Amino acid sequence: METTVAVIGGGSWATALVKLLSENEVVINWWLRSKSDMNHIINYGHNPRYLSGVHLNLKKIKPQHELKEAIATADIVLLAVPSAFVREVLDLLPTDALQGKIVVTAIKGMIRNENILVTDYVSKRFSITADDLLAIAGPCHAEEVALEKLSYLTICGANIAKAKAFASLISCRYLKATAIEDLAGAEYCAVMKNVIAIACGIAHGLNYGDNFQAVLVANAMQEIRRFLDAVTPMERDLNASAYLGDLLVTTYSQFSRNRTFGSMIGRGYSVKSAQLEMRMVAEGYYAVACIYPMMKKHQVKMPITQAVYNILYEKISPIVEFQILRDLLA
Amino acid sequence: METTVAVIGGGSWATALVKLLSENEVVINWWLRSKSDMNHIINYGHNPRYLSGVHLNLKKIKPQHELKEAIATADIVLLAVPSAFVREVLDLLPTDALQGKIVVTAIKGMIRNENILVTDYVSKRFSITADDLLAIAGPCHAEEVALEKLSYLTICGANIAKAKAFASLISCRYLKATAIEDLAGAEYCAVMKNVIAIACGIAHGLNYGDNFQAVLVANAMQEIRRFLDAVTPMERDLNASAYLGDLLVTTYSQFSRNRTFGSMIGRGYSVKSAQLEMRMVAEGYYAVACIYPMMKKHQVKMPITQAVYNILYEKISPIVEFQILRDLLA
Repeated sequence: METTVAVIGGGSWATALVKLLSENEVVINWWLRSKSDMNHIINYGHNPRYLSGVHLNLKKIKPQHELKEAIATADIVLLAVPSAFVREVLDLLPTDALQGKIVVTAIKGMIRNENILVTDYVSKRFSITADDLLAIAGPCHAEEVALEKLSYLTICGANIAKAKAFASLISCRYLKATAIEDLAGAEYCAVMKNVIAIACGIAHGLNYGDNFQAVLVANAMQEIRRFLDAVTPMERDLNASAYLGDLLVTTYSQFSRNRTFGSMIGRGYSVKSAQLEMRMVAEGYYAVACIYPMMKKHQVKMPITQAVYNILYEKISPIVEFQILRDLLA
Repeated sequence: METTVAVIGGGSWATALVKLLSENEVVINWWLRSKSDMNHIINYGHNPRYLSGVHLNLKKIKPQHELKEAIATADIVLLAVPSAFVREVLDLLPTDALQGKIVVTAIKGMIRNENILVTDYVSKRFSITADDLLAIAGPCHAEEVALEKLSYLTICGANIAKAKAFASLISCRYLKATAIEDLAGAEYCAVMKNVIAIACGIAHGLNYGDNFQAVLVANAMQEIRRFLDAVTPMERDLNASAYLGDLLVTTYSQFSRNRTFGSMIGRGYSVKSAQLEMRMVAEGYYAVACIYPMMKKHQVKMPITQAVYNILYEKISPIVEFQILRDLLA
């Protein structure tokens, strides 16, 4: 019998994941918040707002607007809403709605205010054990999946057999997926990379060059290692694609929204005016507010995170903050 | 008394290093192979061929054409010729010419045919001990030094006090230098990064995207670690700027000659026609010929190096070779 996957979310990453899954023998219950987007997809086989060039195979993909129904028949529930909305969406469900299912998060962010990982929230609210939780780690621009450019994903889960099974389910001609056991570490890294991308953007906005960016990213890797060693210690290869690869694809992309946001801050925009101009909030803006208190609590030396936090939340001038930061890098 | 540094070489990296040193209280005996370039510098205070916008302070910089004289009064000899010419230049000197001096290499390459590091060759030919040998590791585009964009260098040497002293000598307002003890590892890494840059170029030429490049670079770091652990094992943090930073500035630069060369190979140029078109030979072309036999000898798993070697020296099609490589990455 075919596996049924409920994909929750209608953005570009959700659309890319739906496309990937539909390359294999699965049924996809695709939940979209917007009824008109759902209808557009049913009528025309394209998402009107994200990756609209991607043809969606409606023989396998069933767009839906009722969350409970989308999930009811699913073996696997794949969360792909922006982190800012995940709690709102999950709280629509009764607490037994995910029993017996595998929950996969493709969200690169944490639950705001609670400052916990998405999988921790799912585990707590729905009484799901670590055994049934997976996370998808990059490096992966949705746009390149849309173009069927060869990409790689890492499926992270304590139960490596389940991680491997999902890796097979999502692999295809242009997507290779592997599995690792480090769930929390990969999730935190995905969150932190957006903070680092903002830092790279700020540096760019302040007119620092490529030499400085390379040093910034190398130091960021050391900062990420210190954080993970303090918060969720285990033997891990930080140079694996799930960590370093993900950081690179974000920090070196001209299209990264976090980098663009940082660049505007570096050029002198206020946080509010940068957000208004971009018509959106970069994930890293929330991410640093989640990571910062953890850094304080665990007393981890994280000068880049500190600088981004000070600039975005303490309104310290990027020029001044980077004068301090530059002396802390090597 | 002021330190006298002999800088050997007239290219862009040599010019950038001369500029950096001249920010401090040193005397620089600058040896250039070309007599007309030397005269141009003496007359106009600019290198006519490389970083020609850089003003050279002739109160401190003494351009010279006689190698022995340039070296005779020097406390420190800084080698900055292309690796292809280093042996030819060094062999002009009597074997006792470097006695009592500190020799610093800024060369990102190995001695051809002998397949040994520049410091190993210097040590052997001139009977210099490891105590007096240093290497300069990136990440550093010479062009950004010329523009006085903040950059970082790492000075590598077994004698950490001497490495630190040279780090102070070369540090200035826009250059921060630190010291580490790993001489051979940093030198090998600087050589290997050019091979990886060629691989990134080939991928680009074959139309692979940013997702793939991020995976390629992450896998390259793992490949570099395996090589160093086999060839020159010691405790080192590969995410330091000297290793990861140097790799990033090269592989993500649109201006890297190695990347450009690789990109032409990926688009179907033969090695010879790419070299003719570029009017130069990319360092990585020689580097892979040095690294490959060591990889074989030490039996290290290095699929990226293997692929670049097969494409450049065994004339295997880049398309075919990357079809094999892509399945070996994760």
